[in-house]
Amino acid sequence: MKPLEETFIKMVLDAWHSHVKQTDDLFNSLSDEQLFTEIAPGKNRGIYLLGHLTAVHDRMLPLLGFGDQRYPHLYKTFLESPDRAQADIPSVEDLRNYWKETNNILSKNFSKLSVTEWFQRHNAVSEPDFAKEPHRNKLNLVINRTNHLANHLGQLLLLKKAKENK
Amino acid sequence: MKPLEETFIKMVLDAWHSHVKQTDDLFNSLSDEQLFTEIAPGKNRGIYLLGHLTAVHDRMLPLLGFGDQRYPHLYKTFLESPDRAQADIPSVEDLRNYWKETNNILSKNFSKLSVTEWFQRHNAVSEPDFAKEPHRNKLNLVINRTNHLANHLGQLLLLKKAKENK
Repeated sequence: MKPLEETFIKMVLDAWHSHVKQTDDLFNSLSDEQLFTEIAPGKNRGIYLLGHLTAVHDRMLPLLGFGDQRYPHLYKTFLESPDRAQADIPSVEDLRNYWKETNNILSKNFSKLSVTEWFQRHNAVSEPDFAKEPHRNKLNLVINRTNHLANHLGQLLLLKKAKENK
Repeated sequence: MKPLEETFIKMVLDAWHSHVKQTDDLFNSLSDEQLFTEIAPGKNRGIYLLGHLTAVHDRMLPLLGFGDQRYPHLYKTFLESPDRAQADIPSVEDLRNYWKETNNILSKNFSKLSVTEWFQRHNAVSEPDFAKEPHRNKLNLVINRTNHLANHLGQLLLLKKAKENK
């Protein structure tokens, strides 16, 4: 039997990869026109959630010590501002590519991290705080971001046409 | 520093409790009338998602070895059938109570489980399969159900009035 740490890392990463795949499959199945539709009347459009999820995942790179954000310009439009507040947004094609690229880079970095590194602090927590709260490690950030992704995936599923609904 | 196993368990249970609390606060803030509204045109109503989440959480009791389901009659209406397929559903008041009661029972049982028990198999996986796949343990079921809850919480947030939206 594998050491428990490896089992636990597998549990967390399986959930992450499964949700990224489900969301990626959904984005691939939605037309550009569907992405410009609101998930519900007066709520966010699909395109905004595509940018939002990409910005949040891009920000995981520095938080996990994998290097700088690749698309820092997404931050203001898709994290600090609500949908439609910024007139100038990237093209759908670019956003679709950024989304895939970001998840690929995360995935490559995940596979290189050692067991010890997964249980080290992430960069949004200070060393003194981490000494008191060892659960605020890199793996915990992945648990939280998987839940964040699941939350918006539930909303994005509403963009599917009635006959496509599960 | 606490043993790593206790840290894992805390990471998973913190995410569970945080999502149950957010969802519970949301249900408490929604009127019965709001619960009878669709999350988006032609999609599930809030009341259906309240029953669905309760049925899924109730089913965690036997899966985790905490005893029988308390509300097995919810299964057909809120898991096997889509919204509106069953004419006879429990009252909103009853469903609100079942939801709270189910989460309370789960929470009590969670706090009694030992570290060793959390890493034992859940009852939807056979002993031979578990020997090959030790990640299919009780804690993993909680990770998956937290993501399920986050998915529907994202949808339920759409029931809030525009001015209440985050």
